[in-house]
Amino acid sequence: MRISFTSLLLLCIGFTSAQSVKSPSQDIVTEFKLDQSGSPYYSVTYKNQPVIAKSYLGLDIKNEPSLSDSFTIMGVKSASVNDSWKPVLGEVAVIQNKYNQMSVMLRQEGTGRLLNIIFKAFDEGVAFRYEFPKQDKLNYFVIAAENTEFNLTGDHKAFWIPGDFDSQEYVYNETLLSEIDNDKLNLNNGIAVKSITDKYTIQSPLMMKSKNGLYINIFEAAVVNYPVMHLNLDAKTHKLTSQLVPNAIGDMAYLQAPAVTPWRTIMVSDDARDIVGQKMILNLNEPSKIDDTSWIKPMKYVGIWWEMHVGVSTWDYSGTQDASQNKFAKRKPHGATTENTKRYIDFAAKHGFDGVLVEGWNTGWEDWFGNWKEEVFDFTTPYPDFDIKEVTEYAKKKGVKMIMHHETSGSVTNYERRLDRAYKFMKDYGYGAVKTGYVGKIIPRGEFHDGQAMVNHFNYVPQRAAEYKILINSHESSRPTGVHRTWPNYIAAEAARGNEFNGWSSGNPPAHETILPFTRLLGGPMDYTPGIFEVKMNVYDATKTEQVHTTLAKQLALYVTMYSPLQMAADLPENYEKYPDAFQFIKDVAADWDDTKVLEAEPGDYLTIARKAKGTENWFLGAITDENARKTTLTLDFLTPDQKYKAIIYQDGKNADWKNDPINYEIKTIKVTAKTKLKLNLAPGGGTAISIVPIQ
Amino acid sequence: MRISFTSLLLLCIGFTSAQSVKSPSQDIVTEFKLDQSGSPYYSVTYKNQPVIAKSYLGLDIKNEPSLSDSFTIMGVKSASVNDSWKPVLGEVAVIQNKYNQMSVMLRQEGTGRLLNIIFKAFDEGVAFRYEFPKQDKLNYFVIAAENTEFNLTGDHKAFWIPGDFDSQEYVYNETLLSEIDNDKLNLNNGIAVKSITDKYTIQSPLMMKSKNGLYINIFEAAVVNYPVMHLNLDAKTHKLTSQLVPNAIGDMAYLQAPAVTPWRTIMVSDDARDIVGQKMILNLNEPSKIDDTSWIKPMKYVGIWWEMHVGVSTWDYSGTQDASQNKFAKRKPHGATTENTKRYIDFAAKHGFDGVLVEGWNTGWEDWFGNWKEEVFDFTTPYPDFDIKEVTEYAKKKGVKMIMHHETSGSVTNYERRLDRAYKFMKDYGYGAVKTGYVGKIIPRGEFHDGQAMVNHFNYVPQRAAEYKILINSHESSRPTGVHRTWPNYIAAEAARGNEFNGWSSGNPPAHETILPFTRLLGGPMDYTPGIFEVKMNVYDATKTEQVHTTLAKQLALYVTMYSPLQMAADLPENYEKYPDAFQFIKDVAADWDDTKVLEAEPGDYLTIARKAKGTENWFLGAITDENARKTTLTLDFLTPDQKYKAIIYQDGKNADWKNDPINYEIKTIKVTAKTKLKLNLAPGGGTAISIVPIQ
Repeated sequence: MRISFTSLLLLCIGFTSAQSVKSPSQDIVTEFKLDQSGSPYYSVTYKNQPVIAKSYLGLDIKNEPSLSDSFTIMGVKSASVNDSWKPVLGEVAVIQNKYNQMSVMLRQEGTGRLLNIIFKAFDEGVAFRYEFPKQDKLNYFVIAAENTEFNLTGDHKAFWIPGDFDSQEYVYNETLLSEIDNDKLNLNNGIAVKSITDKYTIQSPLMMKSKNGLYINIFEAAVVNYPVMHLNLDAKTHKLTSQLVPNAIGDMAYLQAPAVTPWRTIMVSDDARDIVGQKMILNLNEPSKIDDTSWIKPMKYVGIWWEMHVGVSTWDYSGTQDASQNKFAKRKPHGATTENTKRYIDFAAKHGFDGVLVEGWNTGWEDWFGNWKEEVFDFTTPYPDFDIKEVTEYAKKKGVKMIMHHETSGSVTNYERRLDRAYKFMKDYGYGAVKTGYVGKIIPRGEFHDGQAMVNHFNYVPQRAAEYKILINSHESSRPTGVHRTWPNYIAAEAARGNEFNGWSSGNPPAHETILPFTRLLGGPMDYTPGIFEVKMNVYDATKTEQVHTTLAKQLALYVTMYSPLQMAADLPENYEKYPDAFQFIKDVAADWDDTKVLEAEPGDYLTIARKAKGTENWFLGAITDENARKTTLTLDFLTPDQKYKAIIYQDGKNADWKNDPINYEIKTIKVTAKTKLKLNLAPGGGTAISIVPIQ
Repeated sequence: MRISFTSLLLLCIGFTSAQSVKSPSQDIVTEFKLDQSGSPYYSVTYKNQPVIAKSYLGLDIKNEPSLSDSFTIMGVKSASVNDSWKPVLGEVAVIQNKYNQMSVMLRQEGTGRLLNIIFKAFDEGVAFRYEFPKQDKLNYFVIAAENTEFNLTGDHKAFWIPGDFDSQEYVYNETLLSEIDNDKLNLNNGIAVKSITDKYTIQSPLMMKSKNGLYINIFEAAVVNYPVMHLNLDAKTHKLTSQLVPNAIGDMAYLQAPAVTPWRTIMVSDDARDIVGQKMILNLNEPSKIDDTSWIKPMKYVGIWWEMHVGVSTWDYSGTQDASQNKFAKRKPHGATTENTKRYIDFAAKHGFDGVLVEGWNTGWEDWFGNWKEEVFDFTTPYPDFDIKEVTEYAKKKGVKMIMHHETSGSVTNYERRLDRAYKFMKDYGYGAVKTGYVGKIIPRGEFHDGQAMVNHFNYVPQRAAEYKILINSHESSRPTGVHRTWPNYIAAEAARGNEFNGWSSGNPPAHETILPFTRLLGGPMDYTPGIFEVKMNVYDATKTEQVHTTLAKQLALYVTMYSPLQMAADLPENYEKYPDAFQFIKDVAADWDDTKVLEAEPGDYLTIARKAKGTENWFLGAITDENARKTTLTLDFLTPDQKYKAIIYQDGKNADWKNDPINYEIKTIKVTAKTKLKLNLAPGGGTAISIVPIQ
């Protein structure tokens, strides 16, 4: 690590002018100052354009005076860092960590309490956090409110979802800031548990675009021992204020000094690709706490899962629980039988998938949802038709890894008190990865999915799992903020509206996957479960009108555009066998990368990414569009000069269309080099996937 | 089991007259009726005297109509039971279970919901519970309030403590019902966490005495998956109404039909001895759920504990935490060193004690209390001066069992998620018993010690411990209600104001131990930790004025009057070595019994009990008095006729007095038979202990 300390001022010799810190590029300038009441505020400019106008900083402490005013600056410390590190799994082999730091040390008159505000200025944006140093005047304390402001300088276009303390599984709304209003949302959207407390509270990451073309993103990094930050909007002034998620009795966070808050991040660029490609969220997190990471591997998997979503089989043994939740419908077969599992194992082995997920293997599903019931699952009792010993032995023989499923139904007390037994059971049967689920109202009752206690739980599970060398893929968790750098066995999460909603709800509009990389994916990999080939649900039931809102080709492209080291081929084996040529892309595509190039990006419109597979010279390219058809020409100048490659292009067929003709695709093979200019032709809701392999 | 069904009425052919059920003795009559609104009520008489006047029954259901009115009686079922069972450990070898039962089946007009009210009439009193049968109209539901009334018929004298949802560690107040007022209490009483919500809320068991000499006790049995019931008093009408303990968001209980509430009990007699000797609380609980109970043994123990209470040593390694909690006092030695533990092991081995408790053996004590901190203890990390391997081997060599200590500081989330590791650690080091502690505000935050979630925790711990063959002795738990019948490894609990308060607070007045058998002990054994010989704390520090409020002889008598199969000899080894003749009684006294005779009893005044040690012909007798001296003459007619016995009498010396001359005792040995009339002479705050052994 190269750190150069440029200044160290320790005495309070009149910090009357603003303190500032610039990004290494000099483009982003952050200024900090105290007003006449000693209240701290900051502002941010990008290439001399205002991004964040004067915005106050501060926190309220329960039963104590607020930490919002009467401060004096005791000192300002600066540093410059430029180093790099290697992620265990990732989009690139090496991540550069380059920023300028400004630490402002404050002392509150009257109380004598100390508060530091640390700014880190990256080229991608600026981050800051509150730091409570060890001190006599502040030891244990309770955050009653955080009053961080983000005073936006215009009525930007925003890609937003409502500030729901229990869910992020929403379709993004694309409106002006002044048009945000949760009361106008149609909440008949398939989300199981909703806790929206105010019409003007929205979630971060909040992606915006200003009228003069700046891409601005408000988010946070390293949410550890602190609740998730939502954002309260003043729709008239476009000011956002932090809204922490309370616990059952209205407290926000229990801290002991020394302590820090998560980083509050403001990314800004005039090129949308910089937002998608950012690495500052990871850089703001702690390095891996797992010494030996050799057991952490990327994973492509299939599983007994989508067949319940489309109503072919059920989670429960008694045959009533498919995603239709219609207990009075005709009984259907239980999905997780030994026989069916063996079928998936055979399929995985035949096509080179690493793992098989089986949901509905354990008792409890008859009565698992909607009753705030504490003891639903025990995580160690298979249904009688799932012979876990036989399955384990069969999978081992076939060289396939089994993926465990732990649905908690939100009963975290029950899960935590059974965690050791559940993980021991997994290891006894050779399971090295688990998909966790948190559908339902949280127990301890009164807690939200996004509160401090649950954040701690979501960080605790990978920590404990690491002791057992188990990978974690959480669903319905709070959304990631880069903590998978610290716990790299936290291989993926859902924490946004996944592909599953297309199976049984109004679904995800075609723009959805062009927004997620600007929002949810900034925090970490998503188990989006792409790869649905039978796009229309009427193949299962003629009365169904639900469908995936993409073409088949776009489903392929998602394996590249939606980064995750854990990727599911989500559709049924029999559907893949219908389209073996298209399926070849899913078999070929990598899940871990040495390099990534964001070629084109516009939130809500399109995204084109090329990635170089780990340890190879193979590239994979994904291009997606929203509901509009799109033509574009790419230069493949990321390829090695003078090297010839074979490119297999999986593209939308002529007249393909997500709604009317989604499965229409074409596959062609051409030769390309770094000089090739490639014309792409994306259907409405369509996409293109390309594998590019050197010709020896 | 002999059950005779006397009637079974299934049709609603006009239950216009009251339904009634009588105790087998016919003395206690309970009547049940619906009023004109279909609201259920009951009343109780004892030997034709009213005990409970017309008192309504009912519950409020969250977000649903109340279950309090509009009922019709669908049927009434009666039964008579007379059987018996053998407790694993207990006061008697065989417990008779004899009662008449009346089950009233109600249906609510309008909602169609079903509610049963089950009455069991024992000779000791009547019990009733609400039963929610499996039904279409009620599945999952939330109790918002229970409105059970106990309409007392006079301004009785009451032995009461305030309705604190977090503690029962109070001195009993002895006043008329009309004089109850929590606002008038001096709360500078050494209790760490208090949650008193109303001036007229008090706790059960509530012991009362009517002006015409009836002893009346309101309590509950089998508190399982339900909060503790406190009692709201109407001071003018003397009506008590159930006050359940809420959770963090104000809900009382989450239930699924079929479900039952705990039993609400009303004991009544004109002989106070019947209350102390009652077995109905145990009879109302479920039989043991542990099949092999051979590992559950009574236990007398010593331990590193009182020395911290008197300030000789500290819980924490850094030497700041004794019971004075004075961090700025002179540093003192850490109690739980390997060397000190060996000293206690030697002492236990020499004097025949089964076990040694060591508190302060594990890291965390420096910062354990008062900060609502979640991660304090990990239950598996000894302090560096406690070599657990060496201690384990030494204890094994000496034939002494080690008793683990798990202080949770109220952080139940932390304890539950570490429970498996903590118990495995215990078994790895051969520990078969654990004292648990819950000092502090509960985590999950917002929960109370007496709420449903904590009740479930206190019942869960022995259940899990049974899998490891571990005995549980809980401190600061909710008070027992006979559930140790179901989990007989739940060998004792504190859950009242124990002897420890005498070490460092205003202490326990002399009457305290004469009240506990009428209140706290009705629910189960108490780890009162008697046996303090050095009564005055000024032996440790001349400035101290605290003292135990009994004579030494009374400390001995408590081993008989305070039933527990787990009994501590709580004082320091060096103090016992000063008084080896008196110590002999503690060495001799049993902790498990074949028979028990309550010879004399008056709540708040005196208590005399004789018990026959398990599997022997040895009897032990304890007599205690309050602050008043007492003379009495006992007939030893419980002894085997014509058998001669040697009686060693440990009694207060001449002019002994709890305050001025507490250690003054005499020991004499006499011969006795069943015909002996024994004169006892108890000092103020004094007592007599007698061991009676057959002469061969």
